[in-house]
Amino acid sequence: MSQSVHRTDVAIVGAGPVGLFAIFECGMLGLRCHVVDTLDSVGGQCVALYPDKPIYDIPAWPRIEAAQLIEQLEHQAAPFDPAYHLGQRVERLARTADGGAWRLETSAGVAIEAAAVLIAAGVGAFGPNRPPLAGIEAYEGTGVFYYVKRKEDFRGKRVVIAGGGDSALDWALALADIADSVAVVHRRAKFRGAPKSVARLQALADAGTIELVTPYQLAALGGDGGRLDTVVVRTLDDEERRLPADALLPFFGLSMNLGPILDWGLNLDRHHIAVDPASCATNHPGLYAIGDIATYPGKLKLILCGFSEAAMAAHAAFGICRPDQALHFEYSTNKGIPRPESGAV
Amino acid sequence: MSQSVHRTDVAIVGAGPVGLFAIFECGMLGLRCHVVDTLDSVGGQCVALYPDKPIYDIPAWPRIEAAQLIEQLEHQAAPFDPAYHLGQRVERLARTADGGAWRLETSAGVAIEAAAVLIAAGVGAFGPNRPPLAGIEAYEGTGVFYYVKRKEDFRGKRVVIAGGGDSALDWALALADIADSVAVVHRRAKFRGAPKSVARLQALADAGTIELVTPYQLAALGGDGGRLDTVVVRTLDDEERRLPADALLPFFGLSMNLGPILDWGLNLDRHHIAVDPASCATNHPGLYAIGDIATYPGKLKLILCGFSEAAMAAHAAFGICRPDQALHFEYSTNKGIPRPESGAV
Repeated sequence: MSQSVHRTDVAIVGAGPVGLFAIFECGMLGLRCHVVDTLDSVGGQCVALYPDKPIYDIPAWPRIEAAQLIEQLEHQAAPFDPAYHLGQRVERLARTADGGAWRLETSAGVAIEAAAVLIAAGVGAFGPNRPPLAGIEAYEGTGVFYYVKRKEDFRGKRVVIAGGGDSALDWALALADIADSVAVVHRRAKFRGAPKSVARLQALADAGTIELVTPYQLAALGGDGGRLDTVVVRTLDDEERRLPADALLPFFGLSMNLGPILDWGLNLDRHHIAVDPASCATNHPGLYAIGDIATYPGKLKLILCGFSEAAMAAHAAFGICRPDQALHFEYSTNKGIPRPESGAV
Repeated sequence: MSQSVHRTDVAIVGAGPVGLFAIFECGMLGLRCHVVDTLDSVGGQCVALYPDKPIYDIPAWPRIEAAQLIEQLEHQAAPFDPAYHLGQRVERLARTADGGAWRLETSAGVAIEAAAVLIAAGVGAFGPNRPPLAGIEAYEGTGVFYYVKRKEDFRGKRVVIAGGGDSALDWALALADIADSVAVVHRRAKFRGAPKSVARLQALADAGTIELVTPYQLAALGGDGGRLDTVVVRTLDDEERRLPADALLPFFGLSMNLGPILDWGLNLDRHHIAVDPASCATNHPGLYAIGDIATYPGKLKLILCGFSEAAMAAHAAFGICRPDQALHFEYSTNKGIPRPESGAV
C-alpha cells in the first residue's frame, strides 16, 4: 500500500460534531488540521444514525436537526481549510522516529504526522448488527438498509422492518404514511419500545396500516440480481411466511468498537479515555481526548460539553504546536475569522 | 419597602448568555428558575455593550450578532417560563432561617428563596465611567449616551464622541456615514486604538468627514430643558471651543463591580469565584458559579464554555433541589422539550 505523508499541526480522530468544532477552535489559533473518520461523510452518529432527529439542547438553537447541525459546523470549520480523510480508520498511532511528533496511519494507507492529536472518536467506530442471513451483503445499500437517511427514499416501497426496540418502532411509525406497505417482524409478540410508540404501533396495526408479523424471525432473503423482492420469515416451529418486500430495514442495535484506540497506551476508565479536565490532556503529552470518548469527574455526555472540551484542547494543543509563541487570547468579535480570499480556501 | 417572596428551585444571578442557557438546562431537568439582573433587559454585555457585533465562535453559528444570540437563547429558555426580575441587584444572599434554602434580596425589595443559586454574573454589575460634568444626569438617555444600541438612532444628528480608545474610534467610524457631523474630542493628539482604525480615522479627518478636536477635554454641557445643543471643550491652557451637538457619546471605559457578591463568603481567586470544575460548585453547598465570573484550572472565558458550565451546574443543582430523585439522563432528541400548551407558558 503506497503511503503519502501529511505533516500538520493537529490530527483529529473523528469527524462528528465535536471533531468538526475542534477544527474551528484550532483554526482560530492558527493551527491547521487533518481529520480522519471511518464513515464516508462527516457528522458521525448525527448523520449516520439520526439525521432527521431534532436536537433541542444546542445553545442558541432552540431546535436543530442533527444533519443541519453538522452542516453548520462544517461551514464554520471551512475557512480553516481542513483536510478530511474519510472512509478510513486510524490503525496505528505512535511517536515519530525522532520523537518530535505523533504519526497516524490509516486503513487507506494515509500517514499523518502532527504535533498534537485530538481524539474525538465518540463511541469508537460503530456499525449495525447484521442479521445472520446468507448473501445479505449482495442486497446492502439496494434492498437492505441499516439506517434511514431520508424517509423519501422509501416512498411507495413495500418495507419490512425487523426488530422490537425503539428504532424499529420509530421507523415503522415514520414510514407508515410514505411506504406502500409496512410489515414489522419481531420474534416476540411484545415490543420493547416506549409505551407511547407501542400504543401507536398497535393502533396502526388495528387499523390495517401496519402489519405486525410476530412471533417470527428473519430466515432468508429472496431476489434477483441484487434486487430484493422477498423476505422469508419463520417461527420457532418452522412455520414460514414469504413477505413481498422492496426494502428490509433490520434494527438489531449497533456495536461500538474502540478498535485500535485500545492499543495506544491510554489510561482508560470503563471504555472511555481519562483526561485532565483543565486541558483534556490524556496521559501522553500531545494527545487529547474530547467529546463522548473522554471522561473526567462530572463529565456529561452532551454535544455542547464536547464543544467546550474542543476549545480547551485546542488551547492546550497550541502550547505543543507553537512552544515558542505566547498565546494571545482574543475574542472572536475582535479578531474575526480568516477571509476566504486571504487564506488557502 | 414591601417584600414579595418567591419560592423556586433555582435562582440565577445574571441574565447574560450563560444565565439564559442555565434556565434551559435547569428546565430540561424539571427545575423552575427565577433570574435577577441589574440591567433593564436580558442579555448582559451582549446587549448592553456590543449588540451589533458579530460573534464567530458560537458552535454551529458561523456568525451571529450578539443581540441575535440573546434572542435565540431567550427563545430557547421561554418554554420553561422563567421569572425575570430585571433592573435590580441582588443585595443580600444568605441561608434561610431554617437553613433549608438560600434567600436572595434585591434592591427592588424582591425576595427569592431557592434550593440552589447559580451565579452567572459575568464581570459583576458594570457601568460606564461618567465624565465629571455638572448636570450630566439631566441629559443621559436624551443627549448623552454611553452605548450605541442602534446606529440608526444617530441618523442626521450632530454627534460629539469623547475618548481616545477603540470604542471611541469604532463608533466614530461607524457613525461617520449616518450622522450629520461627527467630532472626536480627545485630550491628546495621539489615539490609542487599533492602528488600522487610527489610520481610517485620520483619513476621514483629512477628507473633512470627521473633525478631530485635540488636545481638548470635555468641560461642560449646554442645552435647554434636557435637550443638548452644545458640548463645551477646553485645552489645558483654558482655550475653549463650543461644539454644536445633538448627542454626546463619552467612551471612557467601564468599571466592573462585583458589589455585594464580595460579601457572600465565597472563595475568590483574583476577583473570580473559584469552583470545582466537576460541578461548578463553590465552597457553599447549593451555590454554583458559571460563565466569566467562575474560575478553575484551565478556565477559558468563552461563552461556549459557559454553556457547558451551565449544563454541569444544572445537573449538580438537581441533586440539591430533588435529593430524593435519581437523575434519569436522557438526550433532548428523545425527551423533547415541554409543549407550550402543556406547561405554564
